[in-house]
Amino acid sequence: MPDLSAVAEQLASQEIELPSWAFGNAGTRFRVFETPGVPRDPFEKISDAAQVHRMTGLTPSVALHIPWDKVDDYGELAAHATENGLRLGTINSNTFQDADYKFGSLTHSDPRIRQKAIDHHLECIEIMDATGSQDLKIWLADGTNYPGQDDMRARQDRLAESLSSIYARLGESQRMVLEYKFFEPSFYHMDVPDWGTSLIQVQELGDRALVCLDTGHHAPGTNIEFIVMQLLRAGKLGSFDFNSRFYADDDLIVGAADPFQLFRIIAEVVRGGGFGSASSVAFMLDECHNIENKIEGQIRSVLNVQEMTARVLLIDQCALAEARSAGDVLRANEVYMDAYATDVREALFAWRESRGLPGNPMAAHRESGYDTRNVETRQGGRQASWGA
Amino acid sequence: MPDLSAVAEQLASQEIELPSWAFGNAGTRFRVFETPGVPRDPFEKISDAAQVHRMTGLTPSVALHIPWDKVDDYGELAAHATENGLRLGTINSNTFQDADYKFGSLTHSDPRIRQKAIDHHLECIEIMDATGSQDLKIWLADGTNYPGQDDMRARQDRLAESLSSIYARLGESQRMVLEYKFFEPSFYHMDVPDWGTSLIQVQELGDRALVCLDTGHHAPGTNIEFIVMQLLRAGKLGSFDFNSRFYADDDLIVGAADPFQLFRIIAEVVRGGGFGSASSVAFMLDECHNIENKIEGQIRSVLNVQEMTARVLLIDQCALAEARSAGDVLRANEVYMDAYATDVREALFAWRESRGLPGNPMAAHRESGYDTRNVETRQGGRQASWGA
Amino acid sequence: MPDLSAVAEQLASQEIELPSWAFGNAGTRFRVFETPGVPRDPFEKISDAAQVHRMTGLTPSVALHIPWDKVDDYGELAAHATENGLRLGTINSNTFQDADYKFGSLTHSDPRIRQKAIDHHLECIEIMDATGSQDLKIWLADGTNYPGQDDMRARQDRLAESLSSIYARLGESQRMVLEYKFFEPSFYHMDVPDWGTSLIQVQELGDRALVCLDTGHHAPGTNIEFIVMQLLRAGKLGSFDFNSRFYADDDLIVGAADPFQLFRIIAEVVRGGGFGSASSVAFMLDECHNIENKIEGQIRSVLNVQEMTARVLLIDQCALAEARSAGDVLRANEVYMDAYATDVREALFAWRESRGLPGNPMAAHRESGYDTRNVETRQGGRQASWGA
Amino acid sequence: MPDLSAVAEQLASQEIELPSWAFGNAGTRFRVFETPGVPRDPFEKISDAAQVHRMTGLTPSVALHIPWDKVDDYGELAAHATENGLRLGTINSNTFQDADYKFGSLTHSDPRIRQKAIDHHLECIEIMDATGSQDLKIWLADGTNYPGQDDMRARQDRLAESLSSIYARLGESQRMVLEYKFFEPSFYHMDVPDWGTSLIQVQELGDRALVCLDTGHHAPGTNIEFIVMQLLRAGKLGSFDFNSRFYADDDLIVGAADPFQLFRIIAEVVRGGGFGSASSVAFMLDECHNIENKIEGQIRSVLNVQEMTARVLLIDQCALAEARSAGDVLRANEVYMDAYATDVREALFAWRESRGLPGNPMAAHRESGYDTRNVETRQGGRQASWGA
Repeated sequence: MPDLSAVAEQLASQEIELPSWAFGNAGTRFRVFETPGVPRDPFEKISDAAQVHRMTGLTPSVALHIPWDKVDDYGELAAHATENGLRLGTINSNTFQDADYKFGSLTHSDPRIRQKAIDHHLECIEIMDATGSQDLKIWLADGTNYPGQDDMRARQDRLAESLSSIYARLGESQRMVLEYKFFEPSFYHMDVPDWGTSLIQVQELGDRALVCLDTGHHAPGTNIEFIVMQLLRAGKLGSFDFNSRFYADDDLIVGAADPFQLFRIIAEVVRGGGFGSASSVAFMLDECHNIENKIEGQIRSVLNVQEMTARVLLIDQCALAEARSAGDVLRANEVYMDAYATDVREALFAWRESRGLPGNPMAAHRESGYDTRNVETRQGGRQASWGA
Repeated sequence: MPDLSAVAEQLASQEIELPSWAFGNAGTRFRVFETPGVPRDPFEKISDAAQVHRMTGLTPSVALHIPWDKVDDYGELAAHATENGLRLGTINSNTFQDADYKFGSLTHSDPRIRQKAIDHHLECIEIMDATGSQDLKIWLADGTNYPGQDDMRARQDRLAESLSSIYARLGESQRMVLEYKFFEPSFYHMDVPDWGTSLIQVQELGDRALVCLDTGHHAPGTNIEFIVMQLLRAGKLGSFDFNSRFYADDDLIVGAADPFQLFRIIAEVVRGGGFGSASSVAFMLDECHNIENKIEGQIRSVLNVQEMTARVLLIDQCALAEARSAGDVLRANEVYMDAYATDVREALFAWRESRGLPGNPMAAHRESGYDTRNVETRQGGRQASWGA
Repeated sequence: MPDLSAVAEQLASQEIELPSWAFGNAGTRFRVFETPGVPRDPFEKISDAAQVHRMTGLTPSVALHIPWDKVDDYGELAAHATENGLRLGTINSNTFQDADYKFGSLTHSDPRIRQKAIDHHLECIEIMDATGSQDLKIWLADGTNYPGQDDMRARQDRLAESLSSIYARLGESQRMVLEYKFFEPSFYHMDVPDWGTSLIQVQELGDRALVCLDTGHHAPGTNIEFIVMQLLRAGKLGSFDFNSRFYADDDLIVGAADPFQLFRIIAEVVRGGGFGSASSVAFMLDECHNIENKIEGQIRSVLNVQEMTARVLLIDQCALAEARSAGDVLRANEVYMDAYATDVREALFAWRESRGLPGNPMAAHRESGYDTRNVETRQGGRQASWGA
Repeated sequence: MPDLSAVAEQLASQEIELPSWAFGNAGTRFRVFETPGVPRDPFEKISDAAQVHRMTGLTPSVALHIPWDKVDDYGELAAHATENGLRLGTINSNTFQDADYKFGSLTHSDPRIRQKAIDHHLECIEIMDATGSQDLKIWLADGTNYPGQDDMRARQDRLAESLSSIYARLGESQRMVLEYKFFEPSFYHMDVPDWGTSLIQVQELGDRALVCLDTGHHAPGTNIEFIVMQLLRAGKLGSFDFNSRFYADDDLIVGAADPFQLFRIIAEVVRGGGFGSASSVAFMLDECHNIENKIEGQIRSVLNVQEMTARVLLIDQCALAEARSAGDVLRANEVYMDAYATDVREALFAWRESRGLPGNPMAAHRESGYDTRNVETRQGGRQASWGA
């Protein structure tokens, strides 16, 4: 059993934000399957998030999605979170479901619709003021489906202008993070398809504008940890949306498709100073639990991140530096892989118990009867779903 | 203006089947936008398909999707088609929207659900008996999202068994075409992900089981015309689902993303004997008009196919054979590209007019007022949509 | 430390064939770097392979590549192998370096060149007769670079004819394995680009014609373990070429790029009956050690395969079956991942020592001074290289 | 026949730089095939480039590659160019063939090797001083093959420092263009893998540091014209390396794999002010003629670029703007595609003849006997080849 004592404090500093929408139904364009016991409002979503935190101790905050999580009284919602041991986190805007946004939102050629989209973000900032959230996260579905459909350059200029209006409204301690995505739902071009575009846009805005990296939003074969390194080097990595994928933006449980990639990503986070309480990088999940249990899916996700973090922290940095310096390719790789091959499950079990947490969070959740109670009590109403 | 006289008869033999669902709303997992004037039942879909045929003369049949196009009386539906100058074509089954199929249909481990899926296909065959349709098209969403989730081999065996039960029920003049798809909606494995799998499955069944090739269902970079060649060589190419894509299964208008690819595909169809009245290969569209006008989208699609067919038929086969035989790489490529570079629009305009069709089908449709009337008259009811 | 006793015999049955060319220089089109101590003839390559076997006990045979490994007396070469504790294995043909094959070999339109390529394979079979090799492995670089350059269908027909001539010459206990590759060195089409094509071709030949799966020869995102399952199900999986890749046919050390993929592949091998002495599936490496030490690269490769095999053999099949049967997606995945997360390094260390092998083969090799001696003694001559 | 009179002057302003190395032998890692008549020194390469210019009038300059094109007297080389109607263009450095650069050049951890690589670039600048070249083009093979092999962040920092040393030496009218590449010859990470990295690096340097976009250096599915738009918007597009690809960096003839993509790229060049004499964007070819005639390959390449440029210049910008403004997706696409569908070959034939050029440059070259003479006269010596 590996000795985690040297890294116990670092592990204790880890925080992963849960997305409220992960507890609602999700699916594909073909079908959203319904699941008994799914939350029917933001309060129930927060309760579910709290269950994940009780089991794992890793998830003290919840991200909201506006308008999905709109409530009359955000003070009340924040109080509900506090009572459940959580705080409200990132506010996510949504400009992809209103019919007006069929051809774009912040990039739309019609000033009226652009203003509507800007106003939506200003409303999000008001909600941030009420909830005390730090980050406004912007992911845009904007783009086109057919070559020639619109002028990509003009759209980029309009985007810069719109973002500038929103940025101007941010408070001193608030930040904007701009997410990029390779494709979907636009199939010819996305207005923010890659980290370079996101970077150019936030560079124009100022220090509190940063890039959000969603691990599922890249072209096939992209070396994601390289981008992590580059954004940290540029001081522009704002946050992560963690998930995993085999093909496209599959939004599977983080670490499920390629655990070694998760290891490499976290290794670069640590290398670049993005880990720990001194860093301002925010770590979030963004996943779809189409066919699996949602609370369990979230627990598995944060455990995957934690296990990989423990392995990364066990890298023998001295041996690694020595091998690199000697130009010993295979030895350097071996040192790196030795950390990856380390089985930290048992040690983390002990570490959790030492901190008053369930040693096996998944088993503890299953034994808690939490899901069963929800299936019984959450009757009637309309199940939450991010699909519409 | 190129001379089409030598290929006029071949062009006249071209038939492309329209999918009824192309006239309803479509979208992504993020949003299905509604469009004024969209059909509200199978009868209205057929009316729209008939409009495409009136404008282009290319689309004498319509594919149905069960249960989306279920009606009480298929005789009545067929009569409506006939009155509008159409016939009913391929019957598409659907096993991806019933909650029972969350973990599979024809491959499900539970015999009850497997039987339910088989019975659905038997019902489809009954409908084929009623409509006189030749082809039962099976596309399966079956698969898994997580490694280890299920036993891929056992699923394959069950698939073979289920298909066998369905095949046994086919009439003498009926065929089964099995479609494959690289990914989506399953994100770890699809039970029929590639042409090799589809081929193995239909080889086990018999002569009337064939492969359906959807042009959007391949891994990035796949040489699709090679597969066309290979399936024609094996005598196992049953039908096409035409569309185009930049990224994944984008389901854009055929020829929109990579017109040269469409040219190459049709060139292999012609080369392998898959074109013309002597061939039994069926050509269908399968697209999503998320943001564009649907009838116009279908017109554009069949015109794209027709234009590429005309270019292919103009390839100077003698010059090509000569260059190939001489090992003259660039000359062979030049002969091929000369056909591709030929502008056939004007010649096709004349060809259409000579056959009593509108020279410019798109303009004729716009001038017909057909869409405007539908926006006015198709009030109330529920718009058709393939998303649910 | 996991208990390997229940799987110790299975581990002992594992055999991985080494490619002679892995010990020579390799590189990219940009540069082949030279390395001190590299073998200068087939005898020295076999000596290096023997060193890997002494350290690991996993590699009792060596694959040869003709003409790279042509010698005057194959009896002498076989004796050299035997003296070093090895046997000669698969014979690989080569039709990609002779100027005559610029436009193809077994598919060439010129009967003279086709016959030359066939004759080369007949010569390979003669060598197999001399060396007692079981498998003739055929990988074809054949294909075209430009659309229209040649007739893909005619090439496929000629391929079938050529293979048939070669197959007819095989002895009763000899096999032909046909490898496929997505692309490179041909950039428009490869004549055998995918497993479906390889399967169709070997199906036409007979029982002793099988498919060779090189793990680096697929389109991005391809689910390779699915193909393993499918080929085993069809009884047509002949052999593996193991390596790994991030982008294309990178030919990196197996398990280096995506260790979890290697785990999944071996899991399907075991599931489908492809592992163990009762199976006829052959396991080979095919890698390029462009910048790393070559003998160490081979040691690392077979250790990676062994470690993954041990993890796979530790899968709790009962728990897995139970979870699958219950439709418990996350539990099934967890059981699978628990095996993957198991650290078997220490247990394998003990297992090796119990069999008289070095506990740490890599360290033992480094301490042996083998490489140093070669640098000293292998002066002069021409270093082996697969690049030409 | 389309009327080119309105765009004749724009067409006349088009200049495409030829790479000297395109006239030498090229190949893959598997084989470089030799071709009769290939140049044996930089002077003969320039003669071949001049032949392309005589036939097409499009290629007044030639890019050199150092050390491949090192000569004792660059004045003599420049004079040879002038005599042949050409000028010397971009100087390309090479840090991928010296054994010292096995683990990197400008990014190497060893200061001695870094300095050697910097010195090589300073030598290139000296050559630029002698030849009057404007651009120093830097493409780095630097990177790693195995995770953990080296510290990506430290390499990036060293890269910035090295580039800074080189940039400081540039003359007032000289520029540095930094090329990026997705992968190859490094297979885990490239130090400059994407346009974002190249941009960050050149932003740090100054106004005369720009990005070079090679059309074959992107991940599968990347929307390249979007990057063109973005770099032009940022004022950082320095130059193009034109070629085409189906799979990876195939280096095929530009326009051969996806002619429509070339159209879209040029459309964004024109849209963003990158075309014409007022623009400083440099257009070069960078291709490998592995199996085809090299001079013909270059002629075909520049003709492809010219044809696409003519089509782009024919886009009905008024109709396009109108359709976009009306949100008419299909009409906007139709206007765009109408230009693409226009057959400009005959009109360009006439345009060329009106300027005293051969109407059909390819036929004129074949008839000129130029190749035949070279096969006869270029006997002995060593054929040029970029592979080493």
